[in-house]
Amino acid sequence: MEQKIRLGIIGIGNMGSEHCRNIAAGKCPEIEIAAGADLRESRRAWFRESMPQSAEIYESGDELIRNSDCDAVLICVPHYGHESLTVAALENGKHVLCEKPAAVSATAARHMCETSRRTGKQLTFMFNQRTNCIYRGIHDLLESGEFGKIKRVNWIITDWYRTQRYYDSGSWRATWTGEGGGVLLNQCPHQLDLLIWLCGMPVSVQAVCHEGKWHNIEVEDDVSVYLEFPDGATGIFVASTGDLPGTNRLEIDCEIGKIVCEDGITRIWKLPQNERDICFSSDNPWFRIDPDARVLRTDGLNPQHIGVLNSFAAHLLHGNPLTAEKEDGLREIMLSNAIHLSGWTGKRVSLPADENEFNQMLKEKTAGSQMKTGEDITYQTSHTGTGEKKA
Amino acid sequence: MEQKIRLGIIGIGNMGSEHCRNIAAGKCPEIEIAAGADLRESRRAWFRESMPQSAEIYESGDELIRNSDCDAVLICVPHYGHESLTVAALENGKHVLCEKPAAVSATAARHMCETSRRTGKQLTFMFNQRTNCIYRGIHDLLESGEFGKIKRVNWIITDWYRTQRYYDSGSWRATWTGEGGGVLLNQCPHQLDLLIWLCGMPVSVQAVCHEGKWHNIEVEDDVSVYLEFPDGATGIFVASTGDLPGTNRLEIDCEIGKIVCEDGITRIWKLPQNERDICFSSDNPWFRIDPDARVLRTDGLNPQHIGVLNSFAAHLLHGNPLTAEKEDGLREIMLSNAIHLSGWTGKRVSLPADENEFNQMLKEKTAGSQMKTGEDITYQTSHTGTGEKKA
Repeated sequence: MEQKIRLGIIGIGNMGSEHCRNIAAGKCPEIEIAAGADLRESRRAWFRESMPQSAEIYESGDELIRNSDCDAVLICVPHYGHESLTVAALENGKHVLCEKPAAVSATAARHMCETSRRTGKQLTFMFNQRTNCIYRGIHDLLESGEFGKIKRVNWIITDWYRTQRYYDSGSWRATWTGEGGGVLLNQCPHQLDLLIWLCGMPVSVQAVCHEGKWHNIEVEDDVSVYLEFPDGATGIFVASTGDLPGTNRLEIDCEIGKIVCEDGITRIWKLPQNERDICFSSDNPWFRIDPDARVLRTDGLNPQHIGVLNSFAAHLLHGNPLTAEKEDGLREIMLSNAIHLSGWTGKRVSLPADENEFNQMLKEKTAGSQMKTGEDITYQTSHTGTGEKKA
Repeated sequence: MEQKIRLGIIGIGNMGSEHCRNIAAGKCPEIEIAAGADLRESRRAWFRESMPQSAEIYESGDELIRNSDCDAVLICVPHYGHESLTVAALENGKHVLCEKPAAVSATAARHMCETSRRTGKQLTFMFNQRTNCIYRGIHDLLESGEFGKIKRVNWIITDWYRTQRYYDSGSWRATWTGEGGGVLLNQCPHQLDLLIWLCGMPVSVQAVCHEGKWHNIEVEDDVSVYLEFPDGATGIFVASTGDLPGTNRLEIDCEIGKIVCEDGITRIWKLPQNERDICFSSDNPWFRIDPDARVLRTDGLNPQHIGVLNSFAAHLLHGNPLTAEKEDGLREIMLSNAIHLSGWTGKRVSLPADENEFNQMLKEKTAGSQMKTGEDITYQTSHTGTGEKKA
């Protein structure tokens, strides 16, 4: 292996192009763009014009995987393509960094993880929000044990606003056939992953998923979820692409204090004593305490996609830790599938959810799905992945 | 009728004593304390010593109702006593101001409302949070139509912290037999009433009610509710008496802006255009707008219980409007019962909920209930009713 990872980029749409631009701009010094692939001639033309001359260009991901001598591939195609391309790449001796979500179903994600283990080739996912100092700071605080056990988490993540134009910009977008889900599959994988990373894997969910509530789309654009965790903590997760201006407010209530992250600032309230002890030892029926809020200091770094790409390369070259393990991708889609299943059935769903039931119900959704016609539009974007979109 | 309302106060515990002190201190110039009643000699002794000599003292509410020549009664006994005392007072020609909740069941509250209509005597409830300038301000803003229709409401009301000592301070507290419910019945009637006042009556709820989660009690002390409103708006309501320091954050997302009330301040974000129009007319897939937050100005007045008492007197004397109508009390307990029923059954409950089913299930809970032993303690309190408790 060279001192640079030779990377093949499969899918040169919004996200793939953004990764290409970042790498070509020298932001990933240990990565070299070896190849690109897209089904659309217009995107291949863009790649030819914009990327280094040395980079090969292929008409499909499969072709790239079979013919390119790259070390690893970055997969940026619609979600349903993740499984087959990942498996093919791993089987062909290439490491894989795949866009989120890992796949549309936990079954597919498990297949991808198993293939990675069998082939000994690395697999990871683009959970770029884990590089955000805000969430790293909360993770470190919770890990330290300073705040005791988590009692409650409330995440209102409704600042993923999208207009109808967004959904009309790709024929695959927001259809059961093309995307396999809505806000849960496209926007929320970051928050669901962070929720699991920070608070652990829920044991059950009860969800309401409204499909096409705010847009003319097949899939859900408004989700309300109640969660339960193994040690009795509970949670609320509310997501939407129809609220303007939306909210991104994460509150984590612990035994020894409270953490609230909103507007990019994390405030913490630390108790002098564990609330569980106060409850049973205080003589005051209405015990109150108002500790001053303190702003949680962070290292200020938030490298996002570039950070994930660089840690992927550093992992392959030097054995450094990845931003997320492949099992994190599996866990995220397991939770996502459970929420969908609860929304579809109206019932509480325990995790792990029944994958056959989920797959069967998704199949029924897909059977009734109408792939849209019309040209796919690629935008020159710069995602920060926080729900913020700088034009 | 005199220029002052002659008021009989039934139940001289924490709340009844607080009302007595307020009136005796001259804060209700149109109210005169005509009589008091309590089952406990210790409380009657306190009343004799602390209240005007002219005030009569009775050993029970029924006795007071039958014998006192007061114009109206203020009922401050445990919830199960509300119905019979209210009905008896109305039947005996007395107007009634009753502490919240109206009753333990919607069936009982309906009986109280019907009796008021039949007898022509006034009935209202102690929804003192309606006098808070914060909520009046939001109510006026929503009523004005300036923000368009409501799309979503998220209320995290977890600053009702109570220690075990609170629940141990009264044998009736937090038992199915003595109180008929927990945080829903005792602390949340204010917020449920405000929710209905601000956002309208939900059409369905899906709730999880954890009983004795944070305290050694029979009833619920932790509640998570998903709500749906007639025009498609949705909501989340999270309440607990086990979070320290808790949160009181009310967010109302509307078509033309967002309202967030937290830490006693209401911030509003106004859009230049209705989001529903932006969604379908904007060329920008990721349309973003960040209007400056503005603090909603209010008149600063927050007379709380004294305000309700004074408006009750002014209504009887001059026909001024009440703080809340009797039907508001009925609606609040209808919503509360529906949440309980959903929590008990694990099912979505449409409103109006099946009252027979609720009554039957409550009866079963009561059959398994253990009334506690031990002395009832009365504290010298000063409730603001916001979850804030000043010692």
